[in-house]
Amino acid sequence: MDKSKLNRRKFLKGAGIAGVGAAASTLAAPAIAQTAELRWRLASSFPKSLDTLFGTAEHVAKRVHDATAGKFQIRVSAAGEIVPPFGVADAVQSGTVEMCHTASYYFIGKDPTFAFDTALPFGLNARQQTAWLYTGGGRELMAEFFKDYNLQVFPCGNTGTQMGGWFRKEIKSLEDLKGLKFRIAGFAGNVLAKLGVVPQQIPANEVYPSLEKGTIDAAEWVGPYDDEKLGLNKVAPFYYYPAFWEGSAQLSVFINLAQWNALSTEYKTIVEIACADAHNHMQSRYDVENPAALRRLIAGGAQLKAFPNDVMTAALTATNALYDETAKANPKFAKVYESWRKFRDDELQWFSVGENTFDSFQVRNRARMAPPAAKGAPKAK
Amino acid sequence: MDKSKLNRRKFLKGAGIAGVGAAASTLAAPAIAQTAELRWRLASSFPKSLDTLFGTAEHVAKRVHDATAGKFQIRVSAAGEIVPPFGVADAVQSGTVEMCHTASYYFIGKDPTFAFDTALPFGLNARQQTAWLYTGGGRELMAEFFKDYNLQVFPCGNTGTQMGGWFRKEIKSLEDLKGLKFRIAGFAGNVLAKLGVVPQQIPANEVYPSLEKGTIDAAEWVGPYDDEKLGLNKVAPFYYYPAFWEGSAQLSVFINLAQWNALSTEYKTIVEIACADAHNHMQSRYDVENPAALRRLIAGGAQLKAFPNDVMTAALTATNALYDETAKANPKFAKVYESWRKFRDDELQWFSVGENTFDSFQVRNRARMAPPAAKGAPKAK
Repeated sequence: MDKSKLNRRKFLKGAGIAGVGAAASTLAAPAIAQTAELRWRLASSFPKSLDTLFGTAEHVAKRVHDATAGKFQIRVSAAGEIVPPFGVADAVQSGTVEMCHTASYYFIGKDPTFAFDTALPFGLNARQQTAWLYTGGGRELMAEFFKDYNLQVFPCGNTGTQMGGWFRKEIKSLEDLKGLKFRIAGFAGNVLAKLGVVPQQIPANEVYPSLEKGTIDAAEWVGPYDDEKLGLNKVAPFYYYPAFWEGSAQLSVFINLAQWNALSTEYKTIVEIACADAHNHMQSRYDVENPAALRRLIAGGAQLKAFPNDVMTAALTATNALYDETAKANPKFAKVYESWRKFRDDELQWFSVGENTFDSFQVRNRARMAPPAAKGAPKAK
Repeated sequence: MDKSKLNRRKFLKGAGIAGVGAAASTLAAPAIAQTAELRWRLASSFPKSLDTLFGTAEHVAKRVHDATAGKFQIRVSAAGEIVPPFGVADAVQSGTVEMCHTASYYFIGKDPTFAFDTALPFGLNARQQTAWLYTGGGRELMAEFFKDYNLQVFPCGNTGTQMGGWFRKEIKSLEDLKGLKFRIAGFAGNVLAKLGVVPQQIPANEVYPSLEKGTIDAAEWVGPYDDEKLGLNKVAPFYYYPAFWEGSAQLSVFINLAQWNALSTEYKTIVEIACADAHNHMQSRYDVENPAALRRLIAGGAQLKAFPNDVMTAALTATNALYDETAKANPKFAKVYESWRKFRDDELQWFSVGENTFDSFQVRNRARMAPPAAKGAPKAK
């Protein structure tokens, strides 16, 4: 906390020569801004070592650079470099940096409504989340909500269904969750608290030492590829699935609203479609990297376990109760929840027909799906 | 066919004043092309009435327009307007039009390898298809394959798992498929032929009249939203799922390779990320529109049915055999199949853990997912 403040002060002192200058000229003359040279800063909530997460912001920056012949440059800084990982929303809101790349649910301390932009327990899978935000009404609701924080927001990456995390002890039933100190982000912490868990929100770089020291008993991060990088398998053997609190987890780009409004249509369009491209790129990276990472983890001794059914169903009951309580107490949450809940119901109805039938058939018949290569067929390099 | 040729000739005569002129200047001076005015034509394989499909090409055109302050304009024409629906690949290859928006598997008559860019029986779901093409090695393989046709290719939309189509008679077992004249596109026609089906590839606007007249006994198009527009429910009562031959179906943009190579980095980047944005937009439209369309169809008398298990398993066996035969006969197919098959196996292994467990839990517990709105919660408008 002290360290974060220090970093922040240091940053505020040194920052803004290019960034603020460009912003000022943009604000003054939006018509000319169309081809104006622009230098923006993007603060990521993630460390460079997590290339899937951090790399997504770099992907956006590269696309914007290439689409504008380098006229619009976005400099990406890693978690803590100029802004602490959970300080990025404040930094963009206040205009200290123009953009950030983060998970909106890190900010449920401000308002739980932020969680709809990332993940909620028993919520939407990655495709449903994208559909809700692109054309299902979510975009408008999120824009209205984020406006109060002086933020423009775009979907920018998803992890897919996350793993339930690493546990020192086996979870045989609901009883085993009682008193468990668990690193978990977002609204899910509140759900698990109802089941007796003591939730902790801890940034990436502190998860491993906390678990190693025994400050926490269990930790979830994302999935095999990232978890392996964090070394979580080295300090807890039981690897649970699925993270029912993150059927998908979306990352987002926040942009200071005044800075956004001052952009030309070209720059606005380029930023938005660069985020769309990065959105696909990140999910693809995970889908490509996770299978091999999981095999390596299992070969290294990780014990793969499904959460017991009583944990899943008790968590669903607790989730429903928490949604109702939160909606009663918070009109902003209630408004978004109403739309989201109806959307989720529609999607589950539709996905239960073709999509889930197909996916389940594929998974069940996996062994029959990969016959040996045809004899005499040329080998791919 | 004659009509198509006529349309084509007419188009060749009248076309190209802006398009070819701009292209020529681009080819001559790629460095200046960065901010050059450009007028391109995009031929869609789909009619305007199918707004999800046709609208995806328009979405690309709008994004490119907005990202370039209207300097790069793409005029979208519907199926048959200037190029017949299945003539678009030839038209782009020869440079008659600069771009098209189509399903690559329409061109398996040229080479079955085209199917990997759209859908193959028991293949990849939408997310897996995107992952394969974005970062899983598919992009490079497809680029190499399409190069022989003078084409650059980008993913541009997906339908998700399609419905199995509309049947006049109930399919109670494999026996009922024998001799069935079935409108079905792509490689799947060859699989179903092994089960006794007589496959027919027919463009959108001819599906309804063919089914009505009894020229065919059954027809698949996409899913509830499109099928309702085509009116297929009015001429065949049994609505089957899933289209095991299209666990997802991707659309693509083809660009004449010489025209593509002559574009500046800015224009190349903008076209590519506009396609990425349209890719998400199309899948989202389907996911948002299909649930209500399916409810309307059922309310109107459609009888929703899952394919019998013996049909699914016999089709899988036939599919495996056909893959092997095709790979033996066609080195290009074999090379892509080798990568794709390994990728599919990896994905099924990974999705069997968190993703499918989560999705299946959600679908099974749908009734418990939508509790009545909290009392006293404000109603959304």
